[in-house]
Amino acid sequence: MDCTVQWGHARAMSQNQKKILLVGASGTLGQAVRAALTERGHQVVTASRKDADLTVDITDPASIAELYRQVGRVDAVASAAGTVPWKTLGELSTEDVRGGFEGKVLSQVELVRQGLGHVADGGSYTLITGILSREPIATGTVASLANGAVEAFVRAAAVELPAGQRINAVSPTVFEESLEAYGDFFPGFDPVPVARAARAYVRSVEGLQTGQVYRVE
Amino acid sequence: MDCTVQWGHARAMSQNQKKILLVGASGTLGQAVRAALTERGHQVVTASRKDADLTVDITDPASIAELYRQVGRVDAVASAAGTVPWKTLGELSTEDVRGGFEGKVLSQVELVRQGLGHVADGGSYTLITGILSREPIATGTVASLANGAVEAFVRAAAVELPAGQRINAVSPTVFEESLEAYGDFFPGFDPVPVARAARAYVRSVEGLQTGQVYRVE
Repeated sequence: MDCTVQWGHARAMSQNQKKILLVGASGTLGQAVRAALTERGHQVVTASRKDADLTVDITDPASIAELYRQVGRVDAVASAAGTVPWKTLGELSTEDVRGGFEGKVLSQVELVRQGLGHVADGGSYTLITGILSREPIATGTVASLANGAVEAFVRAAAVELPAGQRINAVSPTVFEESLEAYGDFFPGFDPVPVARAARAYVRSVEGLQTGQVYRVE
Repeated sequence: MDCTVQWGHARAMSQNQKKILLVGASGTLGQAVRAALTERGHQVVTASRKDADLTVDITDPASIAELYRQVGRVDAVASAAGTVPWKTLGELSTEDVRGGFEGKVLSQVELVRQGLGHVADGGSYTLITGILSREPIATGTVASLANGAVEAFVRAAAVELPAGQRINAVSPTVFEESLEAYGDFFPGFDPVPVARAARAYVRSVEGLQTGQVYRVE
């Protein structure tokens, strides 16, 4: 057994351990992201509406401000949270469209905008989008809009972030673990294990790229 | 001179003449779109905040409802209108982000959502986005977000529109005619004549495609 190598590995893990704020930690994706980041040796602080280290309503900018005040400085922010209405184009109201914007776009933009002073130099943001930005499905108009908005925001914010901060999006298709609940919305789509999407978060947090949309499909 | 051909051409023009609601008709792009559609023999009804056939504030859903009540049935809606804030990521406020959404995304979504009952069977919507959805520039974060949102919305709405209605986006780079005002924001970008973007509206209105983003760059 080569103890030098083992020691070197442990030290590298310790040096590279990051404090990561994970928002939306209680869902199928959030739980998988938490597991993947924890397995990599990182300290994960979870935030959700309930059942998390910290409580947050990401549709309320004041709640996000309070979240950053409580969590202190972090090396990375990972978002697995966002809600949009699922209705046909004919059923959508003006407020439905606004609700999808507030629930998945503004919420994640605020995590970045308010994070500028709380995320460490060289830190990163990883936001969640989804395949509907490029592949439409029935009742998915607002989801598509929201995903397209966040992906374009990520590309744009990447060139303006201060202090070497990075930003990427994870854009998965439907998860195998969610097929029972959502499979009928994605007829014929190849599902992926949620662990693959979680791996994209690890890639974003530990890698060096910025402005990327990691497609998991 | 072959009068049969000439007559056939004139009759085709008359049969295919469309009544088109052009929103945002007074700007550099709007004027070019109006000229291009008029030259093709269409009846163009213009709408703007001022100096147009009809007055509208597209950031106000009630104003859009009144616009559709006034214009009656149309064969096509063409939008060349949208406003977003130009600020660095660090300067943006929550209200700036909301303002860009209301000014360029919700406004155009409402033109479609409320247009469902006013646009003729087989009619079309043509929305405006821009190169920032894919190529970021300084102070363009909200513009990028808005363009990405509208482009994804167009792809999604296309599969749900009723009665053979179609929808496309025109996504141009900076115009030669706007270089004096905006050129410094687009260093090294190849400008295009605004007439090329106007031609993309003709392609969207008279063509058969839907869910397309016509890049003019």
